[in-house]
Amino acid sequence: MKLNIAVLPGDGIGPEITQQSVKVLKAVADRFEHEFHFEEAAVGAAAIDFWGNPLPDATLELCKNSDAVLFGAIGDPKYDNDPSAKVRPEQGLLKLRKELGLFANIRPVKAYDKLVDRSPLKAENISGADMVIYRELTGGIYFGEKSTSEDGKTASDLCSYSVEEIERIAHLAFKAAQSRNKKLTLVDKANVLETSRLWRKTVTELGKQYDDVQLDFLFVDNAAMQMILNPKQFDVILTENMFGDILSDEASVIGGSIGLLESASVGEKSALFEPIHGSYPQATGKGIANPVASILSAAMLLDHFGLEKEAAVVRKAVEVSIQFNVCTPDINTDNHYTTEKVGDFLESVI
Amino acid sequence: MKLNIAVLPGDGIGPEITQQSVKVLKAVADRFEHEFHFEEAAVGAAAIDFWGNPLPDATLELCKNSDAVLFGAIGDPKYDNDPSAKVRPEQGLLKLRKELGLFANIRPVKAYDKLVDRSPLKAENISGADMVIYRELTGGIYFGEKSTSEDGKTASDLCSYSVEEIERIAHLAFKAAQSRNKKLTLVDKANVLETSRLWRKTVTELGKQYDDVQLDFLFVDNAAMQMILNPKQFDVILTENMFGDILSDEASVIGGSIGLLESASVGEKSALFEPIHGSYPQATGKGIANPVASILSAAMLLDHFGLEKEAAVVRKAVEVSIQFNVCTPDINTDNHYTTEKVGDFLESVI
Ligand SMILES: CC(C)[C@H](C(=O)O)[C@@H](O)C(=O)O
Ligand SMILES: CC(C)[C@H](C(=O)O)[C@@H](O)C(=O)O
Repeated sequence: MKLNIAVLPGDGIGPEITQQSVKVLKAVADRFEHEFHFEEAAVGAAAIDFWGNPLPDATLELCKNSDAVLFGAIGDPKYDNDPSAKVRPEQGLLKLRKELGLFANIRPVKAYDKLVDRSPLKAENISGADMVIYRELTGGIYFGEKSTSEDGKTASDLCSYSVEEIERIAHLAFKAAQSRNKKLTLVDKANVLETSRLWRKTVTELGKQYDDVQLDFLFVDNAAMQMILNPKQFDVILTENMFGDILSDEASVIGGSIGLLESASVGEKSALFEPIHGSYPQATGKGIANPVASILSAAMLLDHFGLEKEAAVVRKAVEVSIQFNVCTPDINTDNHYTTEKVGDFLESVI
Repeated sequence: MKLNIAVLPGDGIGPEITQQSVKVLKAVADRFEHEFHFEEAAVGAAAIDFWGNPLPDATLELCKNSDAVLFGAIGDPKYDNDPSAKVRPEQGLLKLRKELGLFANIRPVKAYDKLVDRSPLKAENISGADMVIYRELTGGIYFGEKSTSEDGKTASDLCSYSVEEIERIAHLAFKAAQSRNKKLTLVDKANVLETSRLWRKTVTELGKQYDDVQLDFLFVDNAAMQMILNPKQFDVILTENMFGDILSDEASVIGGSIGLLESASVGEKSALFEPIHGSYPQATGKGIANPVASILSAAMLLDHFGLEKEAAVVRKAVEVSIQFNVCTPDINTDNHYTTEKVGDFLESVI
């Protein structure tokens, strides 16, 4: 298979981890005789520094003309505490999601047996947990109208959703549930929000087409609690953009490290693969960033193109690395390997 | 001291737990020679069933004319899955908060030594955790304009904040930090939301008046993760309405049971005290609901009126009950006591 892959390393640890996934994907291409072409482009703070734009036109063009995007991370603290900055790195990622129509962000979460003891949660609570979060990614309060009054004394953000936006991701989530344990939990705040009521109504209606899937509902506050109390109750979680952002970061504690969690963002035409962790600026260049989340995102990329055997090989390699402790310090405090060494190991066992 | 206390038991387990707090407050009044007058009124689904209104005028009047409100819980599943219901129990609570101007919801969270083993979190992660969450309660997306298009195909909720709304609660949070460990963490999503940037700017500015307090910032997704990874890092958390709702429920796992967490909602003129747990309909009437969250809310009521010795006596009694396992089944699975028996015990040791 021939694939053109746009590589957007981005900020902070983005470049160093993405480099490892590219290495791994190249090893996969070699072993399975595929042709993967990689082309790099700038995004985020790195792109602001050069072009004054977190998503330069050339980058967007490249992404649109590629089969898939491999994304690193975005964000730089120098912008976070400057509320008046007109241009911010995150805008690059948000615009990219919107322009590519990546409406569904898919975030698998599972507890690795070998790592259960590293989680802040008790082993018996998490061992066996295995869920996937479907987060709506191009709607809601992230993309609604924003405004600040002229005197700067009030600000607002609009959260809005349409039936169509809800249905298209709900279909994907129901289908995922059908291929898993047949349970779908919609997380919302239908006792307060109008948009949540639209979600509940729309998903309930759609559920009739998937009558082999058990559909239930949780308010987001309760969901944030249940995620820790009893994560094993979840199979597929479906939720809107902001709630999905919060819950999936929270869920990362189950796996033992946020450095392990991959994600795929898919739309009608495009697909982007990125770790759920951010740019982790404090770690930049130290060789301590875990490349596994990015490498597992690359495995999702392979799956997306039907290369399931190839994806399985990558996942197997990651499991071996965890089994034999060839890991960065977030999950191996004794005798740890650098970002690059973990990448080298994974490359060489493929 | 003479206090007029409006008692709003509400739905589900609300009545049974509130009854215990009233009992405890009466014991306090007896022992310390205060005059507490209690008057009951309807709210929530219970009030809808009778008056078609989750907050009847008489109830609101009573609350306005009382020194404090002791609130049970609100919510009934028959409304949750009916997105078209025009009248919902939660509207009663939201309207009450708004009408009484209860802009600050104060939620202490701590790990009880005796209970650390009951938490889904490992003891070493939570033992010693002690924080208080200041949640803005009358602004944000809860109260912004809501709308559904005529064809029912789109819906929206507006999140808005003013400098004034942010400042008044921020002052309280900074003062709380001054009297505690002098650390304030603002939780927001300033990399995406305009309102969050207003929060960050306003709180940063205000922080200059409190230069003995260390101010830091966390994005809400990261905060949801840090709450579990390392809850001991927090002293005072300040955040907007929706984020506070999610984080405080999540934080309840630290204490070992949501049945232990009290809250106070305060404004210029009024104050309301309620457990953070909801109406827990499945438990109604079974005698298994934990009255401690409500009783500790009553202790916050005493504190609010400067009755600190009295509040300390109530808290001490609760600690003794936990120490000696006079507890409901959420925290005592062996040999548990009913809601009423726990109330009786606390009443009798006051
Ligand atoms: C960087 C930020 C805009 C982004 C988000 O909130 O979506 C990140 O937290 C994520 O979850 O991918
Ligand atoms: C019942 C509901 C409206 C309420 C809220 O979301 O504020 C509750 O969850 C709470 O936290 O007090």
